[in-house]
Amino acid sequence: MTARVVAEFTGTALLLIAVVGSGIQAQRLSPQDTGLALLENSIATGTALVAIILAVGRISGAHLNPLVTVADAVMGGISWRALAPYVLAQFCGGAVGVVLSNLMFGLPAVEISQKQRNSPGLWLAETIATFGLLLVIYGVVRSGRAAAAPYAVGAYIAAAYWFTASTSFANPAVTLARTLSDTFAGIQPASTGPFVLAQVLGAALAIAVVRLLYPRVIDQH
Amino acid sequence: MTARVVAEFTGTALLLIAVVGSGIQAQRLSPQDTGLALLENSIATGTALVAIILAVGRISGAHLNPLVTVADAVMGGISWRALAPYVLAQFCGGAVGVVLSNLMFGLPAVEISQKQRNSPGLWLAETIATFGLLLVIYGVVRSGRAAAAPYAVGAYIAAAYWFTASTSFANPAVTLARTLSDTFAGIQPASTGPFVLAQVLGAALAIAVVRLLYPRVIDQH
Amino acid sequence: MTARVVAEFTGTALLLIAVVGSGIQAQRLSPQDTGLALLENSIATGTALVAIILAVGRISGAHLNPLVTVADAVMGGISWRALAPYVLAQFCGGAVGVVLSNLMFGLPAVEISQKQRNSPGLWLAETIATFGLLLVIYGVVRSGRAAAAPYAVGAYIAAAYWFTASTSFANPAVTLARTLSDTFAGIQPASTGPFVLAQVLGAALAIAVVRLLYPRVIDQH
Amino acid sequence: MTARVVAEFTGTALLLIAVVGSGIQAQRLSPQDTGLALLENSIATGTALVAIILAVGRISGAHLNPLVTVADAVMGGISWRALAPYVLAQFCGGAVGVVLSNLMFGLPAVEISQKQRNSPGLWLAETIATFGLLLVIYGVVRSGRAAAAPYAVGAYIAAAYWFTASTSFANPAVTLARTLSDTFAGIQPASTGPFVLAQVLGAALAIAVVRLLYPRVIDQH
Repeated sequence: MTARVVAEFTGTALLLIAVVGSGIQAQRLSPQDTGLALLENSIATGTALVAIILAVGRISGAHLNPLVTVADAVMGGISWRALAPYVLAQFCGGAVGVVLSNLMFGLPAVEISQKQRNSPGLWLAETIATFGLLLVIYGVVRSGRAAAAPYAVGAYIAAAYWFTASTSFANPAVTLARTLSDTFAGIQPASTGPFVLAQVLGAALAIAVVRLLYPRVIDQH
Repeated sequence: MTARVVAEFTGTALLLIAVVGSGIQAQRLSPQDTGLALLENSIATGTALVAIILAVGRISGAHLNPLVTVADAVMGGISWRALAPYVLAQFCGGAVGVVLSNLMFGLPAVEISQKQRNSPGLWLAETIATFGLLLVIYGVVRSGRAAAAPYAVGAYIAAAYWFTASTSFANPAVTLARTLSDTFAGIQPASTGPFVLAQVLGAALAIAVVRLLYPRVIDQH
Repeated sequence: MTARVVAEFTGTALLLIAVVGSGIQAQRLSPQDTGLALLENSIATGTALVAIILAVGRISGAHLNPLVTVADAVMGGISWRALAPYVLAQFCGGAVGVVLSNLMFGLPAVEISQKQRNSPGLWLAETIATFGLLLVIYGVVRSGRAAAAPYAVGAYIAAAYWFTASTSFANPAVTLARTLSDTFAGIQPASTGPFVLAQVLGAALAIAVVRLLYPRVIDQH
Repeated sequence: MTARVVAEFTGTALLLIAVVGSGIQAQRLSPQDTGLALLENSIATGTALVAIILAVGRISGAHLNPLVTVADAVMGGISWRALAPYVLAQFCGGAVGVVLSNLMFGLPAVEISQKQRNSPGLWLAETIATFGLLLVIYGVVRSGRAAAAPYAVGAYIAAAYWFTASTSFANPAVTLARTLSDTFAGIQPASTGPFVLAQVLGAALAIAVVRLLYPRVIDQH
């Protein structure tokens, strides 16, 4: 279990460095062009995910996301006893990643975000974003193509930054960690509750569809 | 058949969310830079296609396109009896995807597009776009490299947004669905007829070339 | 041989549509930002190459380039008798691709380019570009990873547009075809001679290095 | 050993052409938009890495980086006797790559960079960048997915340009070579000492984590 906890912690820390660090860099280098900044942020996050999942996926599955861990327990992937250490590692790793991002760019270690993200459109977006993410992960894994998961997830998130109105948080650990930096990728604490609820709804929907599409794991062909 | 219909419906809905949703986001964040907006839209669509085809391809083939389904029936992939449910799922999924995109971004559920797309250059472009798409799909599948299809199609569409004058609709379900949003990716209903005709022509041409190049499926090496 | 000639013709036509068509689109949508236009052009060309090589590679090898065909004959890949039909198909396909690009965008079918591309730096760039291209192709093929060739070549060309001063033509068929469009990707006929000479030099250098690195083909591991 | 030295020399030369050449091109074509220039530079470097590692990886491992070579010796990959020729080839290749970049773009063969890169945030960034790079390389290799290494490294570096404050040098050979061009990607000689120290620290940290995660190499599944 130690190796798996270290893998989830390190992987989620690197993911948040990718999300928040590239957000700060994009905001600084493209200060008057939000579209370009989001393009930079989305390409950096998507390519980072490919690398991170390839690096630690074999150890822990590279969930990097409490809802993926819960879904995995629901669908019989990992034991329920593994849930708490996984999720704890994800939340801690996420927070450490944001702190390191802030420090790299000469900001205070922690600055609570003031960015309000509150509207029915954003909540619908988070439900769709999380539904899609879990459909992609389990669609790939249960169709015997787990080796393609790093590319599928990286590609999905790079796209979802653009096609969802919320820029696709789709992950409670990422959502909470992003309250700790008052920069491009930040979210104020008061906005996180509905975001996480919408994500849970999307995950539940995805599990239902995955069970219908893939009642059992298909072997690699 | 239920799983295949759900796969085509969900996959086409996500495809239209990717096309229309990222188009709205791009238009909002890069309002005065059409080039940058199309770059954002094309990268989002291409990477989304990689993820969607990986997620549902094992179930239904991830056609997401009536012309691919027809071509598949012509070339002996699926039975003609499967044609109607596939195509119905694609049209319904596409419409639902556009409605969800509009709602996420705080727009009316349906707004008929006013964007005129009418000229011989655009029709030639749609013929080329659809010809290329089917050549890529069947070139990959019939040469024993079906596992590479998600990457091939995603890469092709990301490129075709740029190299065709019409930004490459290449899909009747996508064409009709895009009438339902008066935003970046929209097309007015009156322009859809010639677009679909040009796509049918491109598909017929592609089937002829595929049959010449790959008279039979080559085994994986 | 018919299928191989059709594959080279169609593949090279699509390649030139990708290069010239996306160049025209980029120039129109990003008229005052040459950097952004080249980014659009390079991403479209690189991703198109992935799709084209996957689509026809199993038939003809997807050379799409007379220097690749010559190198292949030198290194024992194809017979010398196949050289003429391959090269003819490439030159014809390239010309047809440019004509179709011009027509799609409402331009005269042929407009001779006025763009001068003449300087020792550009010639050095073409030598480096072609050297790298052939090193990548034969490095991949001779190390038993031919299945990765489409991605390797697409990635290489997307990068080489940027890292060479000439934006990396690296292909005599592409060079001549690009004289036929007086747009973003064009080159005036008077500039093509030194370009092709520099490409030949780069190819010769690459063959020498490939022979040293890979005296024989290594089996897939 | 000759082939391996030629592979490291050629690969590192091409890597520096990708880094410095695309930096010059980006600076020239996007002179007033540092964000766009870094996007161009990062995409070119990432895609070039995919191609270069695919081209020469089978011969030498495509380290292209003295710290990777040292880590490989520490972890039993190559013999300690190979260390000196590898590292020498990397430093020489890097220098030659920068000279060729300068010449292609009509600049003096060597111009010592004046760009100061000095701050605790940048040093922390180099430690994180190098830690991540080695975690990705050995995470992939030791989990039996060495075939994915070219994509993992290319994706990682494209992302790390954005998510680290230093734009991720993460390589002593690249760091020293970049002193030889007073352009976008340059670094003044006085700034290199702390950069290399920070990189060594990141590499040591990565080796510790890799040993914990992957005490032995896992076979391909």
